[in-house]
Amino acid sequence: MIVNGAGRSIPEKIRGYKEFVPYISPHGIDPDPYRVRAATGKTLPGEKKLLSDLETAIRACGLEDGMTVSFHHHFRNGDRVANLVLDTAARMGFRGLKVALSSVFPVHAPLVGHIASGTVGGLSCNYMLGPVAEAMSGGAFPFPVIFRTHGGRDRAVQAGEEKIDVAFIAASAADEAGNFNGVNGPSACGSLGYCLTDCRFASKVVVLTDYLEPYPLIPASADETLVDFVVRVDRVGDPEGITTGAVKAVSDPLRLQLARWAVDVIEASGLLKGGISFQTGTGGASLAAAGFLREKMEQHKVTGSFGMGGVTGLMADLLEGGFFKAILDTQSFDHKAIASLRDNPGHVEISSDRYANPHNKGCAVNSLDAMILSATEVDTDFNVNVHTASDGRVMGGSGGHADTAAGSKLAVVVAPSVRKNIPIVIDRVHTVTTPGETIDCLVTEHGISVNPRRTELLSDLKNAGLPLVDIHDLKAEVEKKTGRLARPPVSKKIAAVVEYRDGSVIDVIRALE
Amino acid sequence: MIVNGAGRSIPEKIRGYKEFVPYISPHGIDPDPYRVRAATGKTLPGEKKLLSDLETAIRACGLEDGMTVSFHHHFRNGDRVANLVLDTAARMGFRGLKVALSSVFPVHAPLVGHIASGTVGGLSCNYMLGPVAEAMSGGAFPFPVIFRTHGGRDRAVQAGEEKIDVAFIAASAADEAGNFNGVNGPSACGSLGYCLTDCRFASKVVVLTDYLEPYPLIPASADETLVDFVVRVDRVGDPEGITTGAVKAVSDPLRLQLARWAVDVIEASGLLKGGISFQTGTGGASLAAAGFLREKMEQHKVTGSFGMGGVTGLMADLLEGGFFKAILDTQSFDHKAIASLRDNPGHVEISSDRYANPHNKGCAVNSLDAMILSATEVDTDFNVNVHTASDGRVMGGSGGHADTAAGSKLAVVVAPSVRKNIPIVIDRVHTVTTPGETIDCLVTEHGISVNPRRTELLSDLKNAGLPLVDIHDLKAEVEKKTGRLARPPVSKKIAAVVEYRDGSVIDVIRALE
Repeated sequence: MIVNGAGRSIPEKIRGYKEFVPYISPHGIDPDPYRVRAATGKTLPGEKKLLSDLETAIRACGLEDGMTVSFHHHFRNGDRVANLVLDTAARMGFRGLKVALSSVFPVHAPLVGHIASGTVGGLSCNYMLGPVAEAMSGGAFPFPVIFRTHGGRDRAVQAGEEKIDVAFIAASAADEAGNFNGVNGPSACGSLGYCLTDCRFASKVVVLTDYLEPYPLIPASADETLVDFVVRVDRVGDPEGITTGAVKAVSDPLRLQLARWAVDVIEASGLLKGGISFQTGTGGASLAAAGFLREKMEQHKVTGSFGMGGVTGLMADLLEGGFFKAILDTQSFDHKAIASLRDNPGHVEISSDRYANPHNKGCAVNSLDAMILSATEVDTDFNVNVHTASDGRVMGGSGGHADTAAGSKLAVVVAPSVRKNIPIVIDRVHTVTTPGETIDCLVTEHGISVNPRRTELLSDLKNAGLPLVDIHDLKAEVEKKTGRLARPPVSKKIAAVVEYRDGSVIDVIRALE
Repeated sequence: MIVNGAGRSIPEKIRGYKEFVPYISPHGIDPDPYRVRAATGKTLPGEKKLLSDLETAIRACGLEDGMTVSFHHHFRNGDRVANLVLDTAARMGFRGLKVALSSVFPVHAPLVGHIASGTVGGLSCNYMLGPVAEAMSGGAFPFPVIFRTHGGRDRAVQAGEEKIDVAFIAASAADEAGNFNGVNGPSACGSLGYCLTDCRFASKVVVLTDYLEPYPLIPASADETLVDFVVRVDRVGDPEGITTGAVKAVSDPLRLQLARWAVDVIEASGLLKGGISFQTGTGGASLAAAGFLREKMEQHKVTGSFGMGGVTGLMADLLEGGFFKAILDTQSFDHKAIASLRDNPGHVEISSDRYANPHNKGCAVNSLDAMILSATEVDTDFNVNVHTASDGRVMGGSGGHADTAAGSKLAVVVAPSVRKNIPIVIDRVHTVTTPGETIDCLVTEHGISVNPRRTELLSDLKNAGLPLVDIHDLKAEVEKKTGRLARPPVSKKIAAVVEYRDGSVIDVIRALE
């Protein structure tokens, strides 16, 4: 075992996983100077990419046992493509396929069966919720799942660590040459930011759509130069499924108070000025903060630079109202956001590469002023866990959590200190998603706990008269009420490896006993 | 010597040029399955890309003697960046730099001096006009220039044949993170389609601009993930220089007649129907054809699919008038086209990769119905020369000529049979730019000569009652008036190699005696 830079004990080797380096520090690893080689192609005039059905496309791609197929979560719990392709592959008799699905939702439950039957022999994702997470947590999978961040996934694909053989793209609209987008058609889902790097680096790319437009489709999220085949399906996904899970508005007074304080922190830190940029996570309190930020911006007559992330209608309203000049969108979370992306030139689809890949020439998280993050657990070193619940079961993942914390000037975690009598602020998180070095402060109902590394922020908040609480005192206070959290009983089996955005291993998740 | 697929005698080896294969046929060469590896990067939060001056940027890129620097011709004869960078590099003492400049214009005259002094030791381009062409034709350069097509240049960069060490981008607007475009700012020049592949594959990318906007610049032709450094300069280019050279309207009755017949050919061929797509070259007659096409479309109540290419205001008018649903734009030729690209969502900037690279998964020329091309010489095999004048001097190059001829359903060459008593239709063109196999017919003032390979087109035109003339008869007719053309006296020295779009050698250009 080795102790990594986040203080976690990690085995030196993990069966079924690459040779790796343990996590060092937020920017501790330099990339190889070159990306992996991308596929060329050759399409003759008059040659057709539109194939009759999915099975024909799978054959045309030359899919073989053990290859890696990729999928993307723009439809979240409304996705139909991953199941459709894997069911078809199972029927065709494929074995040991590795699945690179950017996020796994309850809708992907059939994956459990495909793993049990041997059709699927590997899985990587950035987030996981539902039956697949349950099965994995219980130790049901014969391989460790790889968890990455949104930026880390794009990095891994470009570095050749996640070599995609065939990328399957769920597009709400496409043309016969393979130009596609997520804003046209009856199943419009908004930004397709998570699939764009796969399109560049996969050996073969298949676009599935339920809506074909005449050439040339405009806009094109990715274009004909990158697409091998197009297949028409009945329904590519259900946009109603997008709002499932993390994306919900809140009204309870506790969370609203947290949101207010988070915005107070931004103000006190001096970032609430012309040109401010801002992102919220998908937790209720962090979304509510966007509303309070708007009030503050009005009050101070401040116009912002950009909002980013998973984008909600609330953010679209801020753009339309002139509070921001731009939205950079990797995923649209509701109908209003989808319409805004389609209609407002200031609302721009960006790839997850541009969003957060630490090993390109510059990503957008580096231009973020303030990031409001949620947490399942926070420890006294400010490490944050959004992977596992208090019982040790996986019910999430980083998504952009670790990426934005590392890039933004101010990373504020917002969480109640106790949920259902379970302490949230604890000694040591069960899983490190985001290293404490990249977190500036934690806002709970007891006040604001500042990372002691951030002395300037501490004095700013003191001067502003905000309620401060030392994180150790906070933890003690919480434990008085809840008692010390019993850690879940885990086995030796590594159910999942948690990669930091740079590809180092920040933690492992062990199967429950 | 070997005789290639266009009937040209080519040496087996050419000093100062790659090992090569001779031209075989329009689609005769398959690509290597993988592109060259592209550079990664690492930019920390707060790290600055905006450097104080060009010299600092050149040093920061690690430029060394003999490396390849690239430039692009969006400002055409108004370009200031190539001269600025090469003058600076000369002052800094660099030797033997290879220059990949997408097109060379009279404004680039200082290049002759840089070659003479040894600062520059290699040159590739897709088009060449002015003093550099004069010097090269006279045998002044100690290396063969490489001529490519627009699509072939992107192919060569991606194949690693044209390895770009540092790409210098002339952008009319940029932000400090390196996002850039050609539609904002006082020097707006329109599409930046020719530089986008270099941005992806160059080791280092420097954006030069005279107009910085706050982050994030929208739209971004290429984004921060691909840009290493940003430098502010006094003036990045003069948009007034764009219209120099090939882009001129015509009014003389002969050319207008040719344009009319060209459109008649399109009509007779059955392509003038809903969804027609269309491109014209930059010659006067071919541009005039766009106007006549509009009349025909109105008459037939036909709505087209897209117009493409170098884009003029005339094409923008067609889009605005609803005659086409889209324009795919690699270069904007005038103020109206620039404004249209900026303001009309149906007017889309595309890379030259998407435009015409034969070795990606599909390019737009393959979706072209009708292409109207100009010619300096056409021979009885329908080979077209747009590289050299009758005196053997270089005054052009393929640009997209060979690309569009190969991709489009119908490639119509429009040219007078005689210019200034010099025959245009001859036995054997001095230089093959575009192989006759990819040309469907030639329109001269004597009527229409159909390539005998196109039997269906011949019968369509016959049925339509259009004036047909056999190309051998046409040549004989022309020679009666002008006499046989004396071929220019050439030396043994190879001044330039003409690559077909797939990287094979279709011809060589010998220095004049």
